[in-house]
Amino acid sequence: MTDAAHMPGTMPNAYVAGKGNLSKEDQSLVDRRKRAMGPAYRLFYETPVHLVRGEGVWLYDAEGRAFLDTYNNVASVGHCHPHVVAAMARQAGIFASHTRYLHETVLNYAERLLAHFPAELCHVMFTCTGSEANDLAFRIARAHTGGTGFIVTENAYHGVTYAIAGMSPSLGSGVDLGEHVRVVPAPQSHAAAGEDTGATFAAGVRAAIADMQRLGIKPAALIVDTVFSSDGVFTDPKGFLAPAAQAIRDAGGLFIADEVQPGFGRTGDAMWGFQRHGLLPDMVSLGKPMGNGYPVAGLVLQPRVIEAFGSKARYFNTFGGNAVAAATAMAVLEVVENERLMDNAATVGSGFAAGLRSLAKDHAGLGALRAAGLFLGQDIVDADGRPDAQRAGKIVNRLREAGVLISATGPKGHVLKIRPPLVFSTENVAFFLERLEAVLKAD
Amino acid sequence: MTDAAHMPGTMPNAYVAGKGNLSKEDQSLVDRRKRAMGPAYRLFYETPVHLVRGEGVWLYDAEGRAFLDTYNNVASVGHCHPHVVAAMARQAGIFASHTRYLHETVLNYAERLLAHFPAELCHVMFTCTGSEANDLAFRIARAHTGGTGFIVTENAYHGVTYAIAGMSPSLGSGVDLGEHVRVVPAPQSHAAAGEDTGATFAAGVRAAIADMQRLGIKPAALIVDTVFSSDGVFTDPKGFLAPAAQAIRDAGGLFIADEVQPGFGRTGDAMWGFQRHGLLPDMVSLGKPMGNGYPVAGLVLQPRVIEAFGSKARYFNTFGGNAVAAATAMAVLEVVENERLMDNAATVGSGFAAGLRSLAKDHAGLGALRAAGLFLGQDIVDADGRPDAQRAGKIVNRLREAGVLISATGPKGHVLKIRPPLVFSTENVAFFLERLEAVLKAD
Repeated sequence: MTDAAHMPGTMPNAYVAGKGNLSKEDQSLVDRRKRAMGPAYRLFYETPVHLVRGEGVWLYDAEGRAFLDTYNNVASVGHCHPHVVAAMARQAGIFASHTRYLHETVLNYAERLLAHFPAELCHVMFTCTGSEANDLAFRIARAHTGGTGFIVTENAYHGVTYAIAGMSPSLGSGVDLGEHVRVVPAPQSHAAAGEDTGATFAAGVRAAIADMQRLGIKPAALIVDTVFSSDGVFTDPKGFLAPAAQAIRDAGGLFIADEVQPGFGRTGDAMWGFQRHGLLPDMVSLGKPMGNGYPVAGLVLQPRVIEAFGSKARYFNTFGGNAVAAATAMAVLEVVENERLMDNAATVGSGFAAGLRSLAKDHAGLGALRAAGLFLGQDIVDADGRPDAQRAGKIVNRLREAGVLISATGPKGHVLKIRPPLVFSTENVAFFLERLEAVLKAD
Repeated sequence: MTDAAHMPGTMPNAYVAGKGNLSKEDQSLVDRRKRAMGPAYRLFYETPVHLVRGEGVWLYDAEGRAFLDTYNNVASVGHCHPHVVAAMARQAGIFASHTRYLHETVLNYAERLLAHFPAELCHVMFTCTGSEANDLAFRIARAHTGGTGFIVTENAYHGVTYAIAGMSPSLGSGVDLGEHVRVVPAPQSHAAAGEDTGATFAAGVRAAIADMQRLGIKPAALIVDTVFSSDGVFTDPKGFLAPAAQAIRDAGGLFIADEVQPGFGRTGDAMWGFQRHGLLPDMVSLGKPMGNGYPVAGLVLQPRVIEAFGSKARYFNTFGGNAVAAATAMAVLEVVENERLMDNAATVGSGFAAGLRSLAKDHAGLGALRAAGLFLGQDIVDADGRPDAQRAGKIVNRLREAGVLISATGPKGHVLKIRPPLVFSTENVAFFLERLEAVLKAD
């Protein structure tokens, strides 16, 4: 069983109603969800996990069972981090209002956040979600370039608004891409062939630009998740993104780095994924880990790209940059800095990768590994070395039974996606590897 | 000075850089904002207000000066309500994660919220902002109807995503409307002429439908803010919306009630603005007051409209419906119910309207008043009874100096928009009226 196990665009690791081994209580919750929330929601796992508590890297189900969270890049500084919870509660008790009044909290945060960026990226705008940040980038790119064409990778995910769902082919064929959106092969298509990843990826971008121009579509931007999370995690060689960024700029378009997945130190070597590639984006979108669960996100940009938009349009997001969002995000940044979580991601991530490579020597099912800090993509392959989505799905579900949470990704659904909270320890890695080995042996 | 004082689409009550009477400290904050947040943000007032604390209906500036908040429909149950802050902090310390795991908090809230709707509206989907809720409604309406045409009122505001900014003419001519968006006159265009508001409004909708159909555009939906907040506040006669809703349905489109402004009891007579009009929307979007400042929003809908979308697409919003969002929104709903805030809105709002009407007898500048509960729109007119945006702006700024916060609205910018937290008291009304009278006398 290989590719056929995974239909492109279907969600890896989705619960299928009527299957799984649910307790009576959990079945009742599933039924209530269906009734109250309708048919568009999806749960994870053959047997969904019913969670009631989180602390650090651990999540607990209703029966008190512990799960090692090796998947959650929202609770990046650890579930329910006391410093973050306290900062949020304190500010919520004092003042919560928005950016049409002066309040210092949002400015203090904006300045502290921008200090982590190259000097050219010196404005930040606040939204509530990564989707909203990318949607704002979409609007700004159109205003700045006068173009309408956007380029994304073949299994990209950038968000759920109408415009951004239309730039997220990983949502599947049931969600139409935008008329002026072009997809290009993700880096992995070429890595195996031993080609120059950067040159080949840029060639794909140039071909998409040529196709647009032939149809009279002016390019507005190339947007990529700088670790290519939903494409299967592609992090190396460092620098491979630079030629593609140059290609879109040569055509008058912008380069947008979607840092919702890799941002805030996860890759271990830098705060932002684009920094692996020695380039300077025009805009950088931020999301998930920014508030450790509080809905706060943002768009960092170079002043020249917002000039056209700012001269004719205003931007207001009722909750974006409110005082509680700012205080919470500030607390998260403090933890990232004070607990040296970027360094931790580098050290622990490096050991994690080494452990997986070591395990792969004894288990043919473990194929190529791509990793940067605490973002790891582990291919699962069949006896002939071909992508094996069914086996990946089985591993994900057996790990869940063994008390470890991860998921699968990639257009073929055969890549284990591993991205734990950044407070993950060497002991947590050992626990993960022990459970994974047991699952592989039982296979 | 009348209309010329307000350019359509410019923001009423926006701070103009270099004007106003700012303290050195506040000027420094303004400068820091510009540097860190760029040119697209706007502040309120000739002299911006620098806020540091909120409690109930009061906001306090950096010098300890109190302002009566008569404008904030986000902090609907009062600034920093202790029950809401406590619920948020408690849940954030226990578990914060999302809807791909089972957790009961979101179901308990979903069911309690849906109990406030007619039985047909029995699904709710969670987002973080009203913009995201309307954007989701946009996607669902397209999937359900196969149409692409949307109808909005001439000065509508529905949100800031690309698709929804394109349906928000109040953002001004610098923001293009969507290609398949048609604007119709808001109810007020006809009220003065003594026409049948419902019939005339529906005629506008039918004309827009005919225009679309002539161009081969299939109508998808009519969406209205059911109190027409940015159009100038239009609440009566009750029932006037029904013929327009029928018109869009006759053309195969949906009727979407945007309850971000009127929802959660503000109109005093019902939880939702659409209920004034004796009709049943296909979808209802919720936002601002839902979490009293916490970024939570949602879309309530009839199951048949989500069938097409749900059969081919999935919906996931990382923070939407997370456990903290659900617990916080639940606490807000508990306060609305337990403190009987809808009844309070009816009683206090009724006294507020009576007080304004009484004041208008002595002050020619106060023109027509439209009000439902604690949502009031007070026209400001010149000596000839014509809309006077400059005078409205002056009143807004003089009230700010007198310690009362409101703003102006409408396509001509001459309508005082008054929508205080729902915990507003009769004493607060007396305070407001006293200050307003002083401002009018000094005029």
